[in-house]
Amino acid sequence: MSPMSWVSPLRIGVIGAGGRLGSEIVALASENNCTVALRGLRQEWITSGTPDVIIDASHDTAFESVLAYCCEESVPLVEAVSSLAPEQIEQLATLGRAVGVVHAPNLSYGNHLQHAVLLTLAHLLRDASCGWECTIMERHPTFKRDRPSATARRLARTWSDESGRGVSDVAAVRGGLPVSDHELTVTLAGETVTVKHSVTDRRAAASGALKAAQWLVTKPPGLYTMTDVYVSEKEKPNG
Amino acid sequence: MSPMSWVSPLRIGVIGAGGRLGSEIVALASENNCTVALRGLRQEWITSGTPDVIIDASHDTAFESVLAYCCEESVPLVEAVSSLAPEQIEQLATLGRAVGVVHAPNLSYGNHLQHAVLLTLAHLLRDASCGWECTIMERHPTFKRDRPSATARRLARTWSDESGRGVSDVAAVRGGLPVSDHELTVTLAGETVTVKHSVTDRRAAASGALKAAQWLVTKPPGLYTMTDVYVSEKEKPNG
Amino acid sequence: MSPMSWVSPLRIGVIGAGGRLGSEIVALASENNCTVALRGLRQEWITSGTPDVIIDASHDTAFESVLAYCCEESVPLVEAVSSLAPEQIEQLATLGRAVGVVHAPNLSYGNHLQHAVLLTLAHLLRDASCGWECTIMERHPTFKRDRPSATARRLARTWSDESGRGVSDVAAVRGGLPVSDHELTVTLAGETVTVKHSVTDRRAAASGALKAAQWLVTKPPGLYTMTDVYVSEKEKPNG
Amino acid sequence: MSPMSWVSPLRIGVIGAGGRLGSEIVALASENNCTVALRGLRQEWITSGTPDVIIDASHDTAFESVLAYCCEESVPLVEAVSSLAPEQIEQLATLGRAVGVVHAPNLSYGNHLQHAVLLTLAHLLRDASCGWECTIMERHPTFKRDRPSATARRLARTWSDESGRGVSDVAAVRGGLPVSDHELTVTLAGETVTVKHSVTDRRAAASGALKAAQWLVTKPPGLYTMTDVYVSEKEKPNG
Repeated sequence: MSPMSWVSPLRIGVIGAGGRLGSEIVALASENNCTVALRGLRQEWITSGTPDVIIDASHDTAFESVLAYCCEESVPLVEAVSSLAPEQIEQLATLGRAVGVVHAPNLSYGNHLQHAVLLTLAHLLRDASCGWECTIMERHPTFKRDRPSATARRLARTWSDESGRGVSDVAAVRGGLPVSDHELTVTLAGETVTVKHSVTDRRAAASGALKAAQWLVTKPPGLYTMTDVYVSEKEKPNG
Repeated sequence: MSPMSWVSPLRIGVIGAGGRLGSEIVALASENNCTVALRGLRQEWITSGTPDVIIDASHDTAFESVLAYCCEESVPLVEAVSSLAPEQIEQLATLGRAVGVVHAPNLSYGNHLQHAVLLTLAHLLRDASCGWECTIMERHPTFKRDRPSATARRLARTWSDESGRGVSDVAAVRGGLPVSDHELTVTLAGETVTVKHSVTDRRAAASGALKAAQWLVTKPPGLYTMTDVYVSEKEKPNG
Repeated sequence: MSPMSWVSPLRIGVIGAGGRLGSEIVALASENNCTVALRGLRQEWITSGTPDVIIDASHDTAFESVLAYCCEESVPLVEAVSSLAPEQIEQLATLGRAVGVVHAPNLSYGNHLQHAVLLTLAHLLRDASCGWECTIMERHPTFKRDRPSATARRLARTWSDESGRGVSDVAAVRGGLPVSDHELTVTLAGETVTVKHSVTDRRAAASGALKAAQWLVTKPPGLYTMTDVYVSEKEKPNG
Repeated sequence: MSPMSWVSPLRIGVIGAGGRLGSEIVALASENNCTVALRGLRQEWITSGTPDVIIDASHDTAFESVLAYCCEESVPLVEAVSSLAPEQIEQLATLGRAVGVVHAPNLSYGNHLQHAVLLTLAHLLRDASCGWECTIMERHPTFKRDRPSATARRLARTWSDESGRGVSDVAAVRGGLPVSDHELTVTLAGETVTVKHSVTDRRAAASGALKAAQWLVTKPPGLYTMTDVYVSEKEKPNG
């Protein structure tokens, strides 16, 4: 079974189409009978018609242009830039009143699984009679600028909210192979439980971007997350 | 906060009291104001009265004697031997009609957490539209005879039952430091999620044995698991 | 700097040209101005002239044909099939009297590094006053048939020869992402030293195959290893 | 064979005798027929005679007192405090003109092995024709104040000196079980080689401290390292 077997023909726009993630999305879209109707490159945007949905895989510097385009053309947005500032995330919420928006700082299904596992652990350890401590470590290649990653910060925030106690450390390493590792370790007396999500191929993220795009075009305006996308996909009768 | 702060004085019997795990249980019991009223050694059982509960941390060769003692003296049993044969596990169920029995092939809290996480992952992946594969790897020092471990086999069985599909491999390594590693890896396209439970100190298991013993003496006859012990502990108002 | 910058135009033959490794070698050869003059596929060999060197990346079932071809046409051979039987390895030695042969059950540079590190550790621990134990673990995807891998067996054999004492265990796991992991762990009292070689992209092996081919065409008849290739490359003035 | 079988009766002084490492050294010394003639505690030093050698396992705040004592009493020093300032390390060199001094920011044999392996890798990669990058990651429990650890900084410095190029990152995580992990990763195109040293029991360091003390009392004045201790031990006929 092809992972994309449920993707119906779709006209997408990809901002950052020449970048590491964007070029994977373009390649995967072509393999799955999607049309890339808009390619946002650093110098210019090349368009052959209005797309059904925009996937933003560029940098936060393109954010204003992306927002303006989606607002004016009423095009839904999968926002995959992970380094947005808090004000920019608020602007996403505003856009979500007009069109569908998926805020997706991490697109991969593995991250969805890791987040679900984190919830299980945090709920079990909340008010537990035994002592525990939690640390988070993330690794990305040297070209990644922000540290720690948005994904690591989100894992730490969820852990704190759900377990009732903050993590001891959120550490970042810059080096190694593409793409990324995120590791959460719970330490008890004389034992540890570690949950590690490793991505070695950007196709994992590109596949999530297309799933989000496909899902979003059927939804009313609103601000959504990848959890909404993946939970909804799971609930389909033909799952 | 001491991890054993809720342990009220208890009279325990420890079978295999001279072994790796048994001697840790005896030591931890003493530190927590429990009396060790019976010590089962290879040559003889030394007793200073009938204990409130027996913890069996010996080998399957002692099983018949342990069963006979608990049955005749009506003493509840925490059965921690991991290499029991299927018939022996049936005998535990029979004993459970007369007294309380916890069948505990793995005593540690970390294993409880790993098992709960496995359930979360298996349920998310059941009928998932994406491809996946699951493998289990366990490591114990060279003196461990059976391979793979009872814990690894149980993880594999639960995975198969709950996800609807069996694991690809259950591999065992014999070597390295005490005590054990159990690692479950879910592989998706271009990414993995790994859940690893590492024990470095046998106190993790000894602590579980005492918690099970303390819990069991308040329960009616029945066959219980460590999940019952840990879930119940969590539900206590002062948990 | 391109890793292949020193590759001069070369006419290669690739046996198993349609397989996982073979197709990577063909692709990398094209990117580096090599001509693929012979493609050995399962059904037939397609040739456009005699190559300067053959790279065998197929199965042991093709071995007789490969050997016969190299012998008759006097073409040097990079033999990358890892599952050869002892008699087949002897036949390689015989061929090595007529033409250059690199026996390369593992082509990657990382394996060369891991092997060198193993020698350092084994020599330090030979006759050491402290106790130690060594284990080897390897992982390959589920389609890998032989277990443990030829590389793991070679690491174990070298460890035994150089340290004076055999390894405790050589374990294999089948599952996970392409390509492979090989992990050697030395356990001391209360501490471990682990050396892990992970390959995530078959290009690592393909690159080694081309380096071996390039090197081999300048050498007299003989039976060589990848150590010869990599050590020699290091000694070049412009290395 | 006991790892300490070669230790002849020795009168040692332990500064920081009540600390995590110091108390392990005291315990191990007793098990090996050494006399602890001086115990340096936070409040006072308790002495029953001048020791043959001092092991300093305290904090840098005690450094002046330790130095003065060794100088006045002409007692050799194993200096195991890892957070010394550069000026303090210079003072060690000065003391080394009068008595034997082992500067031992890391006492364990596993660190000695890891350092030797690092040299092997750095020499192989110096001027290598392939691209590479090196990162170092260390982990210590939350109570460790300085980050990164002295050991990680030393590994990075040696790597830079011996390979001709600096490491990309030296990252630190604070959390997890005692005692420590130090991990060096070399990344090549599509593959990695990782060398990890994990310590789970402070006895590994305590054992190194006693070996250094035993070795030092036979040596002339000078400033030595743990490499000197371990290399020399290896060269003994009955090594």
